Amino acid sequence: MDLSPIINQLTMISLPDIPLVKPGDDLADLLIQSVGILGTQLLEGDILVVAQKVISKSEGREVSLKNVVPSSAASKLAKIVGKDPRLIEVIIDESKEVVRHRPGLIIVENKNGLVLANAGVDMSNVRQADGDTVLLLPINPDESAAKLQDEVRRRAGVDVGIIINDSLGRAFRNGTTGIAIGVSGLPALTDLSGKADLFGRKLQVTQVAVADELAAAASLLMGQAAEGRPVVLVRGFVSGHPKGSARELIREKEEDLFRDGKQ
Amino acid sequence: MDLSPIINQLTMISLPDIPLVKPGDDLADLLIQSVGILGTQLLEGDILVVAQKVISKSEGREVSLKNVVPSSAASKLAKIVGKDPRLIEVIIDESKEVVRHRPGLIIVENKNGLVLANAGVDMSNVRQADGDTVLLLPINPDESAAKLQDEVRRRAGVDVGIIINDSLGRAFRNGTTGIAIGVSGLPALTDLSGKADLFGRKLQVTQVAVADELAAAASLLMGQAAEGRPVVLVRGFVSGHPKGSARELIREKEEDLFRDGKQ
Repeated sequence: MDLSPIINQLTMISLPDIPLVKPGDDLADLLIQSVGILGTQLLEGDILVVAQKVISKSEGREVSLKNVVPSSAASKLAKIVGKDPRLIEVIIDESKEVVRHRPGLIIVENKNGLVLANAGVDMSNVRQADGDTVLLLPINPDESAAKLQDEVRRRAGVDVGIIINDSLGRAFRNGTTGIAIGVSGLPALTDLSGKADLFGRKLQVTQVAVADELAAAASLLMGQAAEGRPVVLVRGFVSGHPKGSARELIREKEEDLFRDGKQ
Repeated sequence: MDLSPIINQLTMISLPDIPLVKPGDDLADLLIQSVGILGTQLLEGDILVVAQKVISKSEGREVSLKNVVPSSAASKLAKIVGKDPRLIEVIIDESKEVVRHRPGLIIVENKNGLVLANAGVDMSNVRQADGDTVLLLPINPDESAAKLQDEVRRRAGVDVGIIINDSLGRAFRNGTTGIAIGVSGLPALTDLSGKADLFGRKLQVTQVAVADELAAAASLLMGQAAEGRPVVLVRGFVSGHPKGSARELIREKEEDLFRDGKQ
């Protein structure tokens, strides 16, 4: 089996008329309806890239800071970085470790191993009933993706791939890019080790983060602001590599050359 | 002007019949011919994402290690990382600084500010006349992109965007993703500061590396091995943001929290 068939064409379409999502909403149903509005239907192998916020909202991951009492450690760190101590308490609670901080910025490893600013805790695009509501990442995004895949299969009778994406900053480079924080039904990381290049020479560095590349691509169609287009249908992606999870995309701390050094 | 119009659909097509490129080849002509084979023509606003290797080859950036005499510093580092001292000499010559190293791995800041393994010096998909040929990155990829944009404009009469992409590893995450090392004729980094979210709240972290997201997307269609599809046409990208360069995507060392600490 050729593990990397050529992809000649890839089409990405943002799904129309996705309403604001509330806890317990039937996401699979919303997605299938929206695909219908486009005048098409889901096909085997299609990938749906869903913005993290939609998943988090449907899972009720909103927290009102009014109900948060900061620890003394959170209050101390809040003073250094210049943020609300209650927000820092929530961030620490979502994290294994504070990796770096400086005024205005706190980078953690969250409980799923993601290295990111503010543990992904965010106020944008969250309805501010009391002015103090924040949204957390899903507890287990791979599981959220698998559940959504199951639901879509049950309703539409086809197996699609699901990516939950979020926009993260990076070391060394300016700007955020979309990455895959949850994956189900498609490869996350493909391994080309031992495959021959154009001249028959074996390739060496060969793991490709295809789910992150798909997440980045879809991010272009989502917008970050008021566009409200949080789901993108990707059609045309093929791969013979085994299906995987976003967990595989996370490098172990011990393997990472940039987790050492001073905070 | 709305700086971030909605992108409803984005199509990516890999260009067929791109031959192996030699120094001095007329790239613009090859690309225009290939678009013709697809049965379409270049449209204003199209983006051509071109694999770095194609640009490097057309610019004659091949080096035979047979002609390289390693310095004593290169020989010393070569012993530590377990690589050919002549290769290390070439890597150091392409770099400002060795950022991290360990057996089997050397990460540098190259002369253009990119933080990457082996300074991007690579043997894969390079014709090995003598078994010792390596390919370097273009000297100035933004300039290479601008030149190609000019040539395409002159021949085809349309202004397209050009991205030169390469597959790079990242801190914290496994696998490579395509990133933009050269950009011309499109925004590289878009700034959404002050834009309102769905609920009218001003966005905070707001720079999006759209050129990297496009580079990642195109990378999905290129393959890393013998597929030989090194150019991807992206159709449907729109942005009101100012055009930029890949230089903007590089974070200054002093601004980066992961450039401190021990090597």
